[in-house]
Amino acid sequence: MRASKRHVEDWLLQPPRGMNDWTPDKYYSLITVASKLSRVAESFGYSAIETPALEHFEVLKAKAGEEVINEIYYLKDKAGRELGLRFDMTVPVARVLSYRRDFPRPIRLYYVSKVWRYDEPQFGRFREFYQFGVEHVGSPTVQSDAEVLALAVKSLESVNLPQLTVKVSDRRIMDQLLDKMSISTARESVLRILDKRGKVTDDELIKLLIREGIDKTKAESLVAIASTRTPIVNSTGELRELGVGDDLINYVESLVNALTDYGVLDRVYLDLSIVRGLDYYTGFVFELYTDKIKLAVGGGGRYDELLKVYSGEDVPAVGFAIGIERVMLALSEEQGGVPPVDYYVYPMESSYYGMGVRIAEKLREIGLRVIVDVGKPSLRSALEYAARIKARKFIIIGRREVEKGVVRVRDLETWSEEDVPLDKILK
Amino acid sequence: MRASKRHVEDWLLQPPRGMNDWTPDKYYSLITVASKLSRVAESFGYSAIETPALEHFEVLKAKAGEEVINEIYYLKDKAGRELGLRFDMTVPVARVLSYRRDFPRPIRLYYVSKVWRYDEPQFGRFREFYQFGVEHVGSPTVQSDAEVLALAVKSLESVNLPQLTVKVSDRRIMDQLLDKMSISTARESVLRILDKRGKVTDDELIKLLIREGIDKTKAESLVAIASTRTPIVNSTGELRELGVGDDLINYVESLVNALTDYGVLDRVYLDLSIVRGLDYYTGFVFELYTDKIKLAVGGGGRYDELLKVYSGEDVPAVGFAIGIERVMLALSEEQGGVPPVDYYVYPMESSYYGMGVRIAEKLREIGLRVIVDVGKPSLRSALEYAARIKARKFIIIGRREVEKGVVRVRDLETWSEEDVPLDKILK
Repeated sequence: MRASKRHVEDWLLQPPRGMNDWTPDKYYSLITVASKLSRVAESFGYSAIETPALEHFEVLKAKAGEEVINEIYYLKDKAGRELGLRFDMTVPVARVLSYRRDFPRPIRLYYVSKVWRYDEPQFGRFREFYQFGVEHVGSPTVQSDAEVLALAVKSLESVNLPQLTVKVSDRRIMDQLLDKMSISTARESVLRILDKRGKVTDDELIKLLIREGIDKTKAESLVAIASTRTPIVNSTGELRELGVGDDLINYVESLVNALTDYGVLDRVYLDLSIVRGLDYYTGFVFELYTDKIKLAVGGGGRYDELLKVYSGEDVPAVGFAIGIERVMLALSEEQGGVPPVDYYVYPMESSYYGMGVRIAEKLREIGLRVIVDVGKPSLRSALEYAARIKARKFIIIGRREVEKGVVRVRDLETWSEEDVPLDKILK
Repeated sequence: MRASKRHVEDWLLQPPRGMNDWTPDKYYSLITVASKLSRVAESFGYSAIETPALEHFEVLKAKAGEEVINEIYYLKDKAGRELGLRFDMTVPVARVLSYRRDFPRPIRLYYVSKVWRYDEPQFGRFREFYQFGVEHVGSPTVQSDAEVLALAVKSLESVNLPQLTVKVSDRRIMDQLLDKMSISTARESVLRILDKRGKVTDDELIKLLIREGIDKTKAESLVAIASTRTPIVNSTGELRELGVGDDLINYVESLVNALTDYGVLDRVYLDLSIVRGLDYYTGFVFELYTDKIKLAVGGGGRYDELLKVYSGEDVPAVGFAIGIERVMLALSEEQGGVPPVDYYVYPMESSYYGMGVRIAEKLREIGLRVIVDVGKPSLRSALEYAARIKARKFIIIGRREVEKGVVRVRDLETWSEEDVPLDKILK
């Protein structure tokens, strides 16, 4: 082949930084994982939704929090509209439900969607990635919280995510404790600092808190509180000791009961350092972990104030999102693969091409994947090609075969051959 | 519910102009249509691919043509990279194949992907839309052209697109005719003007051509040539009369033979006004029409020069893309819908919630869609809700039932009820 001057530089041939090309060798795994996750959401009665990749920038930034807003891919369209690529699906779904008030509530929705965040790429962190998630909108009950958490766990169990654990906290618990300690300023910053627990040392956390104006004793107790990590089934004693009120203790007890009913209790821990990076959470929050990768594979919680931002109406809601690429990184086994080509049809002469097509069409009708050779390669190179694309069987249509009214079928795994009567295939 | 001050203005609650929210009532139709189209591509041995929504702007504009370049959603990321949302999948796939030269050729790929074009929205024209399409890369033969056209037709037949016709042309034919008429300048503009045939009057076309510097007689013959529209099976006589050379006549004859083998010939017309808006086409081009909507539902052709732009290597290729929203607009019947909820489980008291969950989990295991009530509504409002979301059956767990070791199952279509023993469900 003739090589001419390149028009586009080599580095531009790669996808933009932090984004992935999903060639078939990888894409079918993604499809398989996404289908398994979706099937669990379907079984819980959730229905699929999708929204535009682009949203009005004002919608995106309304309740995202500064950190996430800085990660939005922002653009102005030719009419001067300020738009941005969505960074999650919770915000777009909240927007949709604010004008589709005709859906009976509670509304159960799920999605498998791309989202975009301009973040520093690293292992398991991409600038374009897929989220599987659900939104359960219109119910304030602990049963809704439990349903959503159980659905998250069961979806990850359906793909055999190894060593799955869930860390649960509640923004209301931290609020009560901060109240008790008379910490009224910089609460969001305090929570964000505590959220770093495990990533930086406790000493470092204390220093950061002091820098926010918290005195040393309080900073130390806060870090001690954030170190609470106990199976949720045993957590109420500890919460009582910390001085958490009866209402929240009762809530945790009800949550424990419901999680027991779902058979997921033993995976769930109370971990008061969990905050979640998004400003829209208001109560129950959780993160999903596997011991295979350090980053959370997902998380969620209750966001009772978000819909009001769009519609002015108070609507309680709870949901979660799972990063599908992270799940795939944590799975040791290949999930699905490119489906095999069942037959490769090779007409020895171009006058037999029509017969090849008719045979192929018959086999396709019964659900098989069939390729008809479109070139004029030698039999040998056609066989090589068919083997490389992992075709299972190779059909030869030559003069000998046509005269006998058969085709020769070679099994490319066993290399055995047989003549098959044409009328048996074409009938 | 308390209504407070809205933060976000009403018009922002709608998706950005020209884009669609896919709520479940519509999204399942899209999924159904996309699956049927995909199944045909799979049966032809094509494998699924996906790429990032964002591409380097330089990649997008390399061979798109001015009109399309002006429609690109363009942005600079925070590092100053020039990016754009893809306007089709042909360009991204060409980019991927330019660095994945390990795939055995010919390569058969298909996709169901979103693309974005900043165009004036109108009936059937959106700024974000879904394309189903294939790329067949590495073969220059007429059999490849026929395979791709047949695949397009058969995919649309699989969703019962009414009154499907295909208009075929070839850029080489127009090139030969322009050569013969000694028209050497402004060829792209001439082709673009002829492409408007049917949208504006012939007189208008002639005026536009004259404005490009074509003299009146030639302009009139050009419009006459562009008026050629004849079943492709009868077209060779006409082409010969126009003075088209033997090589292209032979090509059309071979195409006719291959289309006959695929059984799609009667849908195909030669129409020399067909040009396609994208600059990357080099030979065979076609457009897909239904009599239900005016716009083409899809189109494609051969683009033997595109891959060279990225890799410097000559690689012949042919493909097509179909606009899924346009197909849906042309289909009279609903395609699929939200899958029904099989069971709605209603525990009369919160102490029966655990039993409700265990029943639901058993039913979900066998593939059913089951919702457990998460609130404390009255039986009546729970029944109303279940009816509104079109649940099929309603399971009541009350004191009477628990004491008898049964659940009451109400069929929400027939309104008949029966007691079902608990151990029959839970075993």
